[in-house]
Amino acid sequence: MKIAVDVMSGERAPDVLIAGALESLKETEADLILVGDKAIITDALTHYAYDINRVEVVHSKEVITMKESPTVAIKSKPDASVLVCARLVKNGVADGFVSPGNTGATFAAAFMNLGRLKGVSRPAILGTFPTKSNRYTAVLDAGANPECKPINLVQFAVMGSIYASKVWGIKDPKIAILSNGTEESKGTELTRKAYHILKKLPLNFIGYTEGRNIFDNSVDVAICDGFTGNILLKAVEGVGLTVYKILKNEIKKSIIFKGLSLLMMKVFNELKRKVDYAEYGGAPLLGLKGLCVVTHGNSTSKEIKNGIKVGVDFIKNNVNKKIIEELKKFGVSKLNWLHWERHHRV
Amino acid sequence: MKIAVDVMSGERAPDVLIAGALESLKETEADLILVGDKAIITDALTHYAYDINRVEVVHSKEVITMKESPTVAIKSKPDASVLVCARLVKNGVADGFVSPGNTGATFAAAFMNLGRLKGVSRPAILGTFPTKSNRYTAVLDAGANPECKPINLVQFAVMGSIYASKVWGIKDPKIAILSNGTEESKGTELTRKAYHILKKLPLNFIGYTEGRNIFDNSVDVAICDGFTGNILLKAVEGVGLTVYKILKNEIKKSIIFKGLSLLMMKVFNELKRKVDYAEYGGAPLLGLKGLCVVTHGNSTSKEIKNGIKVGVDFIKNNVNKKIIEELKKFGVSKLNWLHWERHHRV
Repeated sequence: MKIAVDVMSGERAPDVLIAGALESLKETEADLILVGDKAIITDALTHYAYDINRVEVVHSKEVITMKESPTVAIKSKPDASVLVCARLVKNGVADGFVSPGNTGATFAAAFMNLGRLKGVSRPAILGTFPTKSNRYTAVLDAGANPECKPINLVQFAVMGSIYASKVWGIKDPKIAILSNGTEESKGTELTRKAYHILKKLPLNFIGYTEGRNIFDNSVDVAICDGFTGNILLKAVEGVGLTVYKILKNEIKKSIIFKGLSLLMMKVFNELKRKVDYAEYGGAPLLGLKGLCVVTHGNSTSKEIKNGIKVGVDFIKNNVNKKIIEELKKFGVSKLNWLHWERHHRV
Repeated sequence: MKIAVDVMSGERAPDVLIAGALESLKETEADLILVGDKAIITDALTHYAYDINRVEVVHSKEVITMKESPTVAIKSKPDASVLVCARLVKNGVADGFVSPGNTGATFAAAFMNLGRLKGVSRPAILGTFPTKSNRYTAVLDAGANPECKPINLVQFAVMGSIYASKVWGIKDPKIAILSNGTEESKGTELTRKAYHILKKLPLNFIGYTEGRNIFDNSVDVAICDGFTGNILLKAVEGVGLTVYKILKNEIKKSIIFKGLSLLMMKVFNELKRKVDYAEYGGAPLLGLKGLCVVTHGNSTSKEIKNGIKVGVDFIKNNVNKKIIEELKKFGVSKLNWLHWERHHRV
């Protein structure tokens, strides 16, 4: 198995990213293709001891920055590292790619080059939230599709269930639709239609769930349109940071604790570890031919390593094959959607 | 000015609520009507020193509990305390009411009895988030209208701007639409239509804002449909609680800090104060003839007191009169919406 890694994008390129990628060699069986400026990467590699048979370098002269418009950059920089990565997957040279770059550009590169899996109407981003007891909750779609139809939510549920079961090893993952209340009468026309279909499918569909429940382990995969998912994801980031800052200030103000600040750091770091995206890797895109994982723009070496591990687990467990099979088996692939609409009054 | 207070609803009724209500007498000019079981309230009142000329008691024999279905309870318990409160406002006996009860039932009681302000298409709930620097951000609608049309978002913006300016004293409040990115091309059909109209109105409309920005003071009023707002509000509650619990556990685990737990409580309490809903009162409903403020079901006396203060500021500053005037002046009242649709291709 080969994973292409875009080591030129994001805020800490390339050294931190190269270090993280090499770290993954010890923890997964995947070989790596590091994509970016060949001279810089080759030079950086001389500082590490690693199995040279497992690492290739593919040259790319351009980089799409975090600030660029994805649509403009994708066109004006055809040789950007992220596009080279996507083409390596498209051409079968790599099995998947990981990028810590501009999220929009990464997904555009993946969409354009890889295309959709058979039967998938819209690929979606799987966002991950840490919960109280060291588990995760997936939120799907975390931003790829601002406007959705019932078929999209239904397919997100099927794909998310497969992901949680195959990659996270959860037996019968609990699937729910995010809504403004748990009663079946709540939600919007969109969520009610998806609800109606999901309760008929052989999934562990538990109905509606509320915003607060994505942190209490009552649900494994929360389904929503990408508009809601994106606002939610960013708000949660924002509030975590705000609580952290308030607490830090309070502690600074407290004279008794001033002297203990070093010890306090230990507690804070433990907290950060728990709420840290780096802990559980990046966000995969579900529904693509191939695999793309996007990690934070300011990814640490740990996040890159974990992003690669997510990719390896995804490929090793044949998630894509299972998605095609189940969409077909459940009768909710794009191809037989018309049948659903006719027979179930969606 | 008279405020009716539903002291029988919520999880801490009635003693804590009565204490909070009486506390408000010292901080506002409003007189109170305490609604609930007359014998119980009269007995509780004997334990306090207060100006008896400023407090009346109105009897109500029933209570709608937190677990009841709002629609069912409203019909089956016509004399429930929250309905008695709403009728006191409807009949002009009180100027507004505050309830810490079942949110759905409270709003249903208010909608049914008070009705909409002239020109208002849909009343909305104004949710409030604390930000880093001791300020607030309003999110409107926080849950009353799961499905919205452009006119609704536009009216929420006008009402929210008036509220932030009149009640919070913010000059030219910054108004934004919550979206999945800040570029004008982002959002959904709904948000883009509302965007198009809002940029033509004499408001300080700053465009789209993202989930994380509701905590950084870059926006004063964030506009969204009630589905998104409700999920957002509950997720933020959930994550705050989660971070708090993780931190508490980490500190418990740290032996060095075990002995310092009492001192640590001081820091924690300060944190809680900052993120606490009780600090800034409840959520008012904008767009009603009259006033309704709903506070948390587990409201403390402080939250009740602050809920009353929010209501007093609302009434004192003629928010409702201003809403009618501005909707008309801006040409976005329900009555001239057809004109907008025809002339601006909404």
